[in-house]
Amino acid sequence: MTTQDLYPTRVSHRPAMIPRKLDPTVYGQAEDGPLNRQQLTGHSQDGFTSIDKLLTDSELRSAQQELRSLLTDPRLDGDERVVREKNSQEIRSIFDIHHISEEFRRLIDDERLAGVARQILGSQVYIHQSRVNYKPGFGGNSFYWHSDFETWHAEDGMPRMRAVSLSIALTDNYDYNGSLMIMPGSHRTFVSCVGDTPEGYYRTSLQEQEIGTPDTASLRALADRHGIRQFTGPAGSGLWFDANCMHGSNGNITPYPRSNLFIVFNSVENALVEPFAAPQPRPTYLGARTVEPIGSPTKAMAS
Amino acid sequence: MTTQDLYPTRVSHRPAMIPRKLDPTVYGQAEDGPLNRQQLTGHSQDGFTSIDKLLTDSELRSAQQELRSLLTDPRLDGDERVVREKNSQEIRSIFDIHHISEEFRRLIDDERLAGVARQILGSQVYIHQSRVNYKPGFGGNSFYWHSDFETWHAEDGMPRMRAVSLSIALTDNYDYNGSLMIMPGSHRTFVSCVGDTPEGYYRTSLQEQEIGTPDTASLRALADRHGIRQFTGPAGSGLWFDANCMHGSNGNITPYPRSNLFIVFNSVENALVEPFAAPQPRPTYLGARTVEPIGSPTKAMAS
Repeated sequence: MTTQDLYPTRVSHRPAMIPRKLDPTVYGQAEDGPLNRQQLTGHSQDGFTSIDKLLTDSELRSAQQELRSLLTDPRLDGDERVVREKNSQEIRSIFDIHHISEEFRRLIDDERLAGVARQILGSQVYIHQSRVNYKPGFGGNSFYWHSDFETWHAEDGMPRMRAVSLSIALTDNYDYNGSLMIMPGSHRTFVSCVGDTPEGYYRTSLQEQEIGTPDTASLRALADRHGIRQFTGPAGSGLWFDANCMHGSNGNITPYPRSNLFIVFNSVENALVEPFAAPQPRPTYLGARTVEPIGSPTKAMAS
Repeated sequence: MTTQDLYPTRVSHRPAMIPRKLDPTVYGQAEDGPLNRQQLTGHSQDGFTSIDKLLTDSELRSAQQELRSLLTDPRLDGDERVVREKNSQEIRSIFDIHHISEEFRRLIDDERLAGVARQILGSQVYIHQSRVNYKPGFGGNSFYWHSDFETWHAEDGMPRMRAVSLSIALTDNYDYNGSLMIMPGSHRTFVSCVGDTPEGYYRTSLQEQEIGTPDTASLRALADRHGIRQFTGPAGSGLWFDANCMHGSNGNITPYPRSNLFIVFNSVENALVEPFAAPQPRPTYLGARTVEPIGSPTKAMAS
C-alpha cells in the first residue's frame, strides 16, 4: 500500500494536533448546486451548514413513520447492523439504512441531499456509510467527542478529508435532549489519537468508543479556541458537516428521544484503501468498499 | 413511630402519582424577608425562584477558590463525605460542607441565604444537608430525574414537604454542560416509587441511583404536562427550589465542569423522624438529625 499517510493516528503514545493538509473543505462553487455563496463560505469557515426545513412536512412524517417501523421490524432482530444501548439494550443505531429502507434510499438520491454533497465535494459521490440514530430518552448514552474522519482513516482506510456528512433531525432537538455539538472551525485541525486499534474493535466502539478518542488537552485547546455550538431546532432540519469536525453529544435523561438520519457522502476520488491503523477494514455496512456513484450527475461535477 | 405517612413510597410494586397534601410551598409573605411578592407567587406556582448574581464578584471568587482548595485537600482523602465518579474516580460531591468549610458556613448564615429560607418556610430553619457538586467535564455523569423529598422522606424520615434547596452556580452553566433541569410545577405531585431500599443503599445511590427513581410513565406524564426548564447563566447565580421538584441533569462531555454549592434548609417544625421506607437512617452528613437553628431570627419567623 503506497498511499501516503497525511494524518497519522493511533501510532504513538503522544497525541498531536496536525493542521489540515491540502484538502479544501469546499470544492464547488455556488453555480454548481443548491447552496449559495454565503452558505459555501460559512461551510468552509465553520465546517458545517445548517438547513432549516430540509424536509417537507410530508417527507418528515413519512420518514418518522419509517423509523418507527424499523425500530420494531422483526426482520432486524439479531442483525449485526443494529447497535443497541449498552445497558438498556434499546436500539441506538441502525446502519446501512440505504440498503435496508427503500424510502430512505429515495430521499438520499434527491438533489437537496446527493446534489449538495456533489457541490461541496466537487465530484460524483457515493455513500460511505448511512444510519439512523435513535438515541432513546430516559438515559440514552452520550457520544464522546470525536472526528469521524479519524475513525474512517484509521479503521476504514479513507485517505483524505473529502467526505461530508448530513444529519437530518427526525425529532425536535432541544437544548436538553443530547443534541449535536460541534466545535466550529475544528475541521482544520486533525487530532492524532493514541492507542492501537484492537481486532474487531467496531463491535464495542459503536456502543462506547475508547481507542481513537482525542486526548483532553487537545479537546480543551480546541474548545477554548473555537467554542462549542449546540444544534437545536425542529424535526426536519438538516446539518451538513465536514468529515473532520470535532463533534459529540451528551446523554439524554429526558423522555424525548433524539433521532436522526445520518448519511456520509464520500467523493469517488477518495475511495478507500487499506486501513491506516487497524489490522483489517471494518465491515462494509460501516464503510462501503465499492464505489457506486449515486443520483444523476449535475453540472456540479468538476471531474 | 406514630407520624402519619402522607407520601408512601417504595412500599408496593405499583408507582403512583399522589397530589401534594396540605403543605404550602411558600409559608411567608413579602414583608417577611428578601423575596418580593412576585417572586413568592412564582415560587409557589413553579416550585423555584432563580436569582441573578446572588453572590458578589468577590464572594464568587473566594467561593471558587475554596472549592479548588477542597478538591485537592489531602485531609479529605478517604473521607466518607467525599463521593467520587463511578469510572474516573474524580470527585463528584463533597457533603457536609458547612462543617468542612468555615467560609461556606459564613455564606450560608447570610440573610440572602438563611433569611430567604426562613421567609419561604415561615419558621426558623436548620441545615438538613449541604454539599458542593463538582461535576467534572469530559464525561461527568448525569443525575437521573428525582424528587429530593422522596429520598429524604424514605431514607431520612423527613415527614413533610417543608424544606427548600438552594443551588449556587460556582461555574458558568451552559446549555451543554449538564446544567440543572426542573419540570416547573412538578412539586405539586409526589411520585411514589417502587422497590425496597437496601441497607446501606446511600453508598451506591450517591454515584448512581436506581431505587427511588420515578417510573418512566410518571416522568413522561409530568414532562408532557409541565415541560422542562433548563437553567443556564453565569457563575454566582442562585436557584431556590422546593424539596419535591422533579429535577435532574444530563451528563457533561464538554471540557467545562459544572460545579455548584447546594444547601438544603429544613423547617425546625419538620424535624426528622424514623425513615418511612428504609431499615435505618442515613448518616448525619446526608441528613442532619439534630435541629440547630441557624442565623439570627428575623421577623420572617411566624413561629
